[in-house]
Amino acid sequence: MDNCFILKGNICHTPQADSLTIKENAYLICEGGVCRGIFDVIPEPYKNLEVIDCTGKLIIPGMTDLHTHAPQYAFCGTGMDYELMEWLNRITFPEEMLYADEEYALRAYEIFAGKVKRSAASRIVLFGTIHPNSTLILMDLMEQSGLVTYVGKVNMDRNAPPGLTEESASRSAADTRFFIEEAIRRGYQRTRPVITPRFAVSCTDELMKELGKIRKEFDLPVQSHLSENPGEIDLVRQLVPEAHFYGDAYDRFGLFGGEGNTVMAHCIYSGPEETERIKSNGVWVAHCPSSNMNLSSGIAPVRRYLEKGIRIGLGTDIGAGTSESLFRAVTDAIQVSKLYWRYIDQKAKPLSFSESFYLATKGGGSFFGKVGSFEEGYSFDALVLDDSIEPAAHSMGSKDRLERAFYQELDRNGIVMKFVDGRQIF
Amino acid sequence: MDNCFILKGNICHTPQADSLTIKENAYLICEGGVCRGIFDVIPEPYKNLEVIDCTGKLIIPGMTDLHTHAPQYAFCGTGMDYELMEWLNRITFPEEMLYADEEYALRAYEIFAGKVKRSAASRIVLFGTIHPNSTLILMDLMEQSGLVTYVGKVNMDRNAPPGLTEESASRSAADTRFFIEEAIRRGYQRTRPVITPRFAVSCTDELMKELGKIRKEFDLPVQSHLSENPGEIDLVRQLVPEAHFYGDAYDRFGLFGGEGNTVMAHCIYSGPEETERIKSNGVWVAHCPSSNMNLSSGIAPVRRYLEKGIRIGLGTDIGAGTSESLFRAVTDAIQVSKLYWRYIDQKAKPLSFSESFYLATKGGGSFFGKVGSFEEGYSFDALVLDDSIEPAAHSMGSKDRLERAFYQELDRNGIVMKFVDGRQIF
Repeated sequence: MDNCFILKGNICHTPQADSLTIKENAYLICEGGVCRGIFDVIPEPYKNLEVIDCTGKLIIPGMTDLHTHAPQYAFCGTGMDYELMEWLNRITFPEEMLYADEEYALRAYEIFAGKVKRSAASRIVLFGTIHPNSTLILMDLMEQSGLVTYVGKVNMDRNAPPGLTEESASRSAADTRFFIEEAIRRGYQRTRPVITPRFAVSCTDELMKELGKIRKEFDLPVQSHLSENPGEIDLVRQLVPEAHFYGDAYDRFGLFGGEGNTVMAHCIYSGPEETERIKSNGVWVAHCPSSNMNLSSGIAPVRRYLEKGIRIGLGTDIGAGTSESLFRAVTDAIQVSKLYWRYIDQKAKPLSFSESFYLATKGGGSFFGKVGSFEEGYSFDALVLDDSIEPAAHSMGSKDRLERAFYQELDRNGIVMKFVDGRQIF
Repeated sequence: MDNCFILKGNICHTPQADSLTIKENAYLICEGGVCRGIFDVIPEPYKNLEVIDCTGKLIIPGMTDLHTHAPQYAFCGTGMDYELMEWLNRITFPEEMLYADEEYALRAYEIFAGKVKRSAASRIVLFGTIHPNSTLILMDLMEQSGLVTYVGKVNMDRNAPPGLTEESASRSAADTRFFIEEAIRRGYQRTRPVITPRFAVSCTDELMKELGKIRKEFDLPVQSHLSENPGEIDLVRQLVPEAHFYGDAYDRFGLFGGEGNTVMAHCIYSGPEETERIKSNGVWVAHCPSSNMNLSSGIAPVRRYLEKGIRIGLGTDIGAGTSESLFRAVTDAIQVSKLYWRYIDQKAKPLSFSESFYLATKGGGSFFGKVGSFEEGYSFDALVLDDSIEPAAHSMGSKDRLERAFYQELDRNGIVMKFVDGRQIF
């Protein structure tokens, strides 16, 4: 069988959110791309497998970036003086228009793909642009990267500048069908399309209805944005007066969980009804703390979502998020949860390191199935971290080393091996 | 004359907080370690100086870290699940005890010194520990680094564990005198002592009185902590009932600006009276956003301080702050100011990139005199940044390149030259 081997090292994961589990000098078994568990001694049936010796290094699950925008990497880290709607109009939309040019798309997406290939992410849920061919270029590159991804051709037929507004709902739907069929025809192994209405502001009811049909027809997941900014929420209220709340503007068209997986980015201002619907429809929340600070959006009530058993993971949300580092997303999530506790709700205990690590691994990973943990039967997504590149004055236990590696963002230069479904990416 | 040369490149600085000034392909003149200004054409008197050609690169002022703890670098990035007082007792104090051992101090401080030498900081105001000899080792290393620093032997004669509590106010004072006299005897060029009561919680009135005398006798600056955490503030109220407010517990002993420079870290919860005293006594505020998030302390009202004309700069505050990157401190300050605006005071406009850049350069630099700007007569502290190590899909103006470099924390690996007082550090 292919993809059978053993990693030896200090193995860290979070089967439960609140308990980081660490086994030092242990063996992690990969059989056909699937994890067979962590052992102190190699069990008899696996005695003959190759052992990749990473003694002393930290081994953690590959991480999931549950929300990001590939075309926005080109301006990531610039234009950070605006709120959401102004930022879209001034910074984002002008950039996304450039992706009408496939040569530009190739050049820009190559940079993005190179970056995420080396990152801590083994799985990503991505936005492209409205352009089907450019988004297919992005899919080709993601397939080559070895990561497992969902990639969406964006839909928007209103409230965007002329060069970035699809001419009609039916044209947007036709382009989406073309995109999906072509993606299927290309026979990717690990790159799948996802239905991607940008947000309720930019999609007419007619378009939403079409997307609901396409979703059902091809049995695809959905990604979009939800309750990110007070001004945006007001706008949705005006644009979709029939919706009981923002999320209902998706749910009315079968684009909000239930049948088929859905991930909604942000969910900062979701009220009780919306939160209930997120829960009952099994929608994933993509918590994007960097983006939510940069656009002055706010802080999502992550503790409340965890307590309610809502599915939740982390997103880098490039380019409103200013770092592609998922290690940083983990520590950002902790930091903003502390400010949330201090200023908004002293009953909402800040996230522990373990909990935030869980969000970036098993939490978001669940969108892809059994992903983000080293329990038996999980996909073998793994990172080997060499934290010795940062000297230390005294020896540290694995828990401290791991926490330090995250705060130092060692995913920038400390990941020495990366595996996805048991395949070595580097 | 020594230290005379010209840097050519894209020169960026903030003579005023709200206007980032950029001159592309310009010449920055250093004469005897002092900046003679920025020119499009080299002026006649400087025609014969060597030109260091950094065409296309970004040149910015060396930055000031107005508050950090050298001994805490050893655990930086770990133990982040506590608030201030618990964190001190569980994490910080046990580490600081280790510095009784000078061999350990040397090993740990060498790592710290190596790190900050490569960092964006040209100037740092630092805490050591209570141990005079170990703190002198830190001074030796800082002197060798080429940076200009103030280094403090910490004073604490109460509310710390036995191994870290000085046995009496008089012993603490004697050790402080020894430390200062020895520092003077060693004849450092760029490393100066600073009076360092840890905070009002850990210093008896008797010790404060002694430190006030020593400060005056040697004409030294002062550094300490102020109004960081609600629990800490309550404690000070109990411990120093005579003080009208927390800062008054320093001012009563001549340790709060007025004669001699003083920098106070945090100032998150300073009320109107304290703020007024900070202003009237000319105290510098060291804003430490990373630390203030990590210890769930809160967000300092930086906009209010700027509007009042209070002196203010940025601090990394290692190890409660989890990054030695001043680029990150700049973007952290922007991010928390956005949350402050959103949740605490919608009249407090978020910091712009220019304003936060100013805080880390001219704002904090002013503690050292004319530092942190390329105006005529300022100390020639400069960094040359190569941001081409991060590929870009399209060309960007210098403003966008600079902002991107900060969000990408390119001070980790993108600084190719560093000058302090005109001396090249690397």
